[in-house]
Amino acid sequence: MKQAQHDSGRLQKAPENFLDPQGIKTVFAEAKSGRRGFIRQAFAAAAAGVAAPMAMAQANPVPPEGGDPYILQLPEHATGLGQGVATEGYGKPSKFESNIQRRQSPGLTQTTQASVSFAPLQSLFGIVTPSGLHFERHHQGWWDIDPSKHRFMINGMVKSPKVFTMDEIMRLPSVSRFHFIECGANTAVEWGNVAVPTVQYTHGMISCSEFTGVPLITLLEIAGADLKNGKFVLAEGGDGSSMTRTIPMSLITSGEVLVAYGQNGEMLRPENGYPLRLVVPGVQGVSWVKYLRRVEVGDMPYAAKDEAVHYMDLMPDGNHRQYTNIQECKSVVTTPSGGQVLLDKGFYNITGLAWSGKGKVKRVDVSVDGGRNWRQARLETPVLSKALTRFNIDWIWDGRPAILQSRAMDETGYVQPTYKQLRAVRGTRSIYHNNAIQSWLVQENGEVKNVQLS
Amino acid sequence: MKQAQHDSGRLQKAPENFLDPQGIKTVFAEAKSGRRGFIRQAFAAAAAGVAAPMAMAQANPVPPEGGDPYILQLPEHATGLGQGVATEGYGKPSKFESNIQRRQSPGLTQTTQASVSFAPLQSLFGIVTPSGLHFERHHQGWWDIDPSKHRFMINGMVKSPKVFTMDEIMRLPSVSRFHFIECGANTAVEWGNVAVPTVQYTHGMISCSEFTGVPLITLLEIAGADLKNGKFVLAEGGDGSSMTRTIPMSLITSGEVLVAYGQNGEMLRPENGYPLRLVVPGVQGVSWVKYLRRVEVGDMPYAAKDEAVHYMDLMPDGNHRQYTNIQECKSVVTTPSGGQVLLDKGFYNITGLAWSGKGKVKRVDVSVDGGRNWRQARLETPVLSKALTRFNIDWIWDGRPAILQSRAMDETGYVQPTYKQLRAVRGTRSIYHNNAIQSWLVQENGEVKNVQLS
Repeated sequence: MKQAQHDSGRLQKAPENFLDPQGIKTVFAEAKSGRRGFIRQAFAAAAAGVAAPMAMAQANPVPPEGGDPYILQLPEHATGLGQGVATEGYGKPSKFESNIQRRQSPGLTQTTQASVSFAPLQSLFGIVTPSGLHFERHHQGWWDIDPSKHRFMINGMVKSPKVFTMDEIMRLPSVSRFHFIECGANTAVEWGNVAVPTVQYTHGMISCSEFTGVPLITLLEIAGADLKNGKFVLAEGGDGSSMTRTIPMSLITSGEVLVAYGQNGEMLRPENGYPLRLVVPGVQGVSWVKYLRRVEVGDMPYAAKDEAVHYMDLMPDGNHRQYTNIQECKSVVTTPSGGQVLLDKGFYNITGLAWSGKGKVKRVDVSVDGGRNWRQARLETPVLSKALTRFNIDWIWDGRPAILQSRAMDETGYVQPTYKQLRAVRGTRSIYHNNAIQSWLVQENGEVKNVQLS
Repeated sequence: MKQAQHDSGRLQKAPENFLDPQGIKTVFAEAKSGRRGFIRQAFAAAAAGVAAPMAMAQANPVPPEGGDPYILQLPEHATGLGQGVATEGYGKPSKFESNIQRRQSPGLTQTTQASVSFAPLQSLFGIVTPSGLHFERHHQGWWDIDPSKHRFMINGMVKSPKVFTMDEIMRLPSVSRFHFIECGANTAVEWGNVAVPTVQYTHGMISCSEFTGVPLITLLEIAGADLKNGKFVLAEGGDGSSMTRTIPMSLITSGEVLVAYGQNGEMLRPENGYPLRLVVPGVQGVSWVKYLRRVEVGDMPYAAKDEAVHYMDLMPDGNHRQYTNIQECKSVVTTPSGGQVLLDKGFYNITGLAWSGKGKVKRVDVSVDGGRNWRQARLETPVLSKALTRFNIDWIWDGRPAILQSRAMDETGYVQPTYKQLRAVRGTRSIYHNNAIQSWLVQENGEVKNVQLS
């Protein structure tokens, strides 16, 4: 076989015997087309102004209109001199991705400082959430605290109360682990049959990062904590929200709970608790106390305000469940999902996320007919304990209405419930801990809608 | 035990019976000190202006000077109202981390468009490299290419040459995998016994990300590639550098080679080939062609300019080794490392990175005496094939000179060589593929220096 030439930076006039003319035309049209909208224009903007970057456009690109495809009109980037290295000492995404943002839900809360922003799950790949798109939940706003002035104290039932500088913490033995963090209130509005338009708003209070820090047990041992009688700790944040949460000692002695300073390879972001936050794998986000300044060892739960008043589950009998901290097994299809539009029939890659606060995801099944039939999805590796797991499954859309669902099972054998099953136990008046199966209706016109099956 | 109150957002006057007075003083001094430099001021700025954020300061913080520690002077963040959610729709690091940047080496190349920027390994945690700090290597600068206009062509020994839009690629079955990418020229200047000051410059042409894309084999199958006679492909980039590289078909049929659009959860960054790059796990970075526009199937290596003129190894006998693409097993201690300063004796966490282009890292040993004695380091999980692996090991510095080294072994049994062993085979005139054991000299004054042992 004759090889083409590749030494000029220009695509040579291609030998006709191994290229189809249409392919050539299309490639050469690259420079002059500029007429076709990219995929994100193909998605109907959802009510809240969210669009998606993911690709679902026509399989047959429009051929160029007129002109000789053999006349090279190469784009500037194919011939010119680009930007130099370290143009951005700290780089940022393409300008073409500027609509991929975390977004708040105006009206959900009275102030933006005691509110939430949602991660754009419909636009994310894999299991790592870019730190710039990590969901936010603040109780009195976020701060950029000077780490040289930050202190972390351990007191309570300990032999020698200690105060640590950041310097002292960062020279101790560290570990790095991937974990998801999910707000206990994720998917909250769906309890009330309010079908918000996009997966960003239904499920966007979850993110997953590689965290680096010192196991809390190491610090407790330095302080000589009474691990026999000290059954709980209180974790306290340094910001004005006075966030205080009880953590059972059993989670700490397992080595899982971290006093973390690193996230996705760099220091925590200010919105995520810089310079220090608690990492409590599998437990709802509110317990991952940000701006962590103190841990107190005690012998009973502390019934702090965010335990005694908020983050409880109102049950059908009128009682509240308290200290329901573990995020149970859950999953969601992120693409296709609400607000997206399928532009034609044919092949699609259905993808989504699954997780469990009790360990590893064992299996994810996907239905395209509202739960009548299920097929097992492919899990991307690594499948890690208390981390997001990415699933993918093939689907050929025949153009008729379809209802997409995913159902996760974790290594304990627990299976994600339907809304019917969840409401039978929990009723409909909860705010927190909604892990029901999500349904997306693909309509004949290709538009995807959030629906709840009765 | 009596619990303290936690409902006011203020730290209450602490009961004296379970806090040591010094600890209290230190915590309360938080608001007013402002006199102690943070850790990065404690590091001597290395020649090239690199500082490190990692912690090595004194174990006993300076007590506050005067004042009643019981008079609360809380910092603004402990009482005020912070920033609201989505202040940054796409967030960024703390202002206190602004010195953590990728940096070029002025003088290394004549233009910044045909140059390299190095990742600040001394400041990174875990295995994920933040995309904003990913090293760069450009041959004619970088571009932010409009994805709606980008096309990817498959031609050569195929039944039906194809041209794909981004839309079409992104609806195909995708996979997500963590892999390192290392420039073949990483650690190049150390061949000549030039001991550059910091690990950012000795080893900073490596990064690790979670990549998402379509296996190239899927696309080749769509085009009906001749997998029997097509033993190689040529991958061609769309920028003006005319980057073209030969990839053996055996790597592709294994499913490992990806046509990738996703990196660390979002779209590739412009500097890393947005919107499409080749991912060739284990192979030197130059083969991970950026701005990928074409793959041609052929029956012999292409001897493209960056294979016939560059990226070859000059051997002691005067011959050149060609197509030495696989990055062999290597490791480096990232902290303590060149340019950092240990401020006192005592405990330190020695940490670093290990990797192999042939599979998983099996073991890393660390020496603090220049290779006379070795101890086995702890590997952070997950340990993934052809990805970075983070290692940690405890060390108590006695204040005397020490030489820190790490030595990695991969699952094939290959052991990272000393400089003596490497030079015995490769000589001293190579540019590429230096995977020798790195030595850091800790001097009595705590300053860490790059040294090469004979």
